[in-house]
Amino acid sequence: MNKPAVILASGGLDSTTLLAIAKNEGWALHALTLDYGQSHRRELEAAERVARHFGAQHLTLRVELSRFGGSALTSEAIERPHHRSAEEIAAGGIPSTYVPARNTVFLSMALAWAEALGSHDLFIGVNAVDYSGYPDCRPEYIAAFEQLANLATREGVTSEHEQGRGIYTVHTPLMHLTKGEIIRKGLELSVDYSLTHSCYFPTSEGLPCGECDSCILRLKGFREAGLPDPLRYAK
Amino acid sequence: MNKPAVILASGGLDSTTLLAIAKNEGWALHALTLDYGQSHRRELEAAERVARHFGAQHLTLRVELSRFGGSALTSEAIERPHHRSAEEIAAGGIPSTYVPARNTVFLSMALAWAEALGSHDLFIGVNAVDYSGYPDCRPEYIAAFEQLANLATREGVTSEHEQGRGIYTVHTPLMHLTKGEIIRKGLELSVDYSLTHSCYFPTSEGLPCGECDSCILRLKGFREAGLPDPLRYAK
Repeated sequence: MNKPAVILASGGLDSTTLLAIAKNEGWALHALTLDYGQSHRRELEAAERVARHFGAQHLTLRVELSRFGGSALTSEAIERPHHRSAEEIAAGGIPSTYVPARNTVFLSMALAWAEALGSHDLFIGVNAVDYSGYPDCRPEYIAAFEQLANLATREGVTSEHEQGRGIYTVHTPLMHLTKGEIIRKGLELSVDYSLTHSCYFPTSEGLPCGECDSCILRLKGFREAGLPDPLRYAK
Repeated sequence: MNKPAVILASGGLDSTTLLAIAKNEGWALHALTLDYGQSHRRELEAAERVARHFGAQHLTLRVELSRFGGSALTSEAIERPHHRSAEEIAAGGIPSTYVPARNTVFLSMALAWAEALGSHDLFIGVNAVDYSGYPDCRPEYIAAFEQLANLATREGVTSEHEQGRGIYTVHTPLMHLTKGEIIRKGLELSVDYSLTHSCYFPTSEGLPCGECDSCILRLKGFREAGLPDPLRYAK
């Protein structure tokens, strides 16, 4: 029987590629989507569609991060970033779309499901190449979370693991890939990117805006991969 | 102006004492209660009552940990522990009331609020004396969370903190106190324990059962402190 893994799945390009990688590696997929009050609700529909496509067991859970504010993704009071190039995004530091401590909350929820399931493997589609502005996408952050997970859980108190090592693994196969490499990897694994949604601020008809940081990076990725994006954009 | 701190507040004896300690230390109190589908809903009412009593800014947020199962506190499918003595509780390892990764999720949510607020101080009422069975109540676990927090957040990417140290503090003033010492400390600070709720499995009228692990430890604490518990028990 395939070993269970919990995969954080947003319905976006990265986490959909992540599901394809985990499936290809033979894991029994448990896809976890967190509804944190993001303004781009289309993402949740895409997550459901993608999880079904991969035959994953899927849960969408609410965590009310939007009540804390602090991000342009969850609060109308914070100004959305202007249209900027991929280079400006890479150089621009932490953007206003950063959601405070989001990946920490997401990984904690994934850990809770993993512990309840008896799984020791979490997958998260973080990337340190194209979007280096997010603190919780760095390898040292992921290593610190693994360390925490090894101490946080039932098995962390048994004697053989007293050093807090070696129980949980946080898999980050996209960490060092460019967006173009992620797309090529996904296409090798027959990912259908028309199922995915990346835009932070889609139009009322659900079309991607083509101008937010997430659209700009996605479009750059398809250009790098030498392929058209199957999505239709608002502009 | 008082510096802001985020205090995890369940409405129980420990976290109510924690609020009193933080208030006494001069922090501006931001009390965070997580509704994780616990079967003891009275706890949430107590949390609201206690937060109001201390003049804290208070948020109660849902996090749907109960959908993962794995604990007698959130799932009717898992048998509740039988009535046992304080000594049996201390010796009994991880009880069925353990909720997978709960404190990791709670601290992550507290961190998210702290980051949005501009606070660097979290308070959690964990204790390594009376209830050593929970992995996520140990000092080494708390140290690992601090390390994670220092890497996870906006300020964690600025150069002066690149080692992941020194930004966030997780305050655990109850860590090494017995239940009796916690109660004496609270009474010094004029805590009204009649506001609190500790029972895991209250009766339909909301009376504490007097028999669950939480009631047993609470009653032992009042005995140690040489005082009667102001609550009326079902038995």
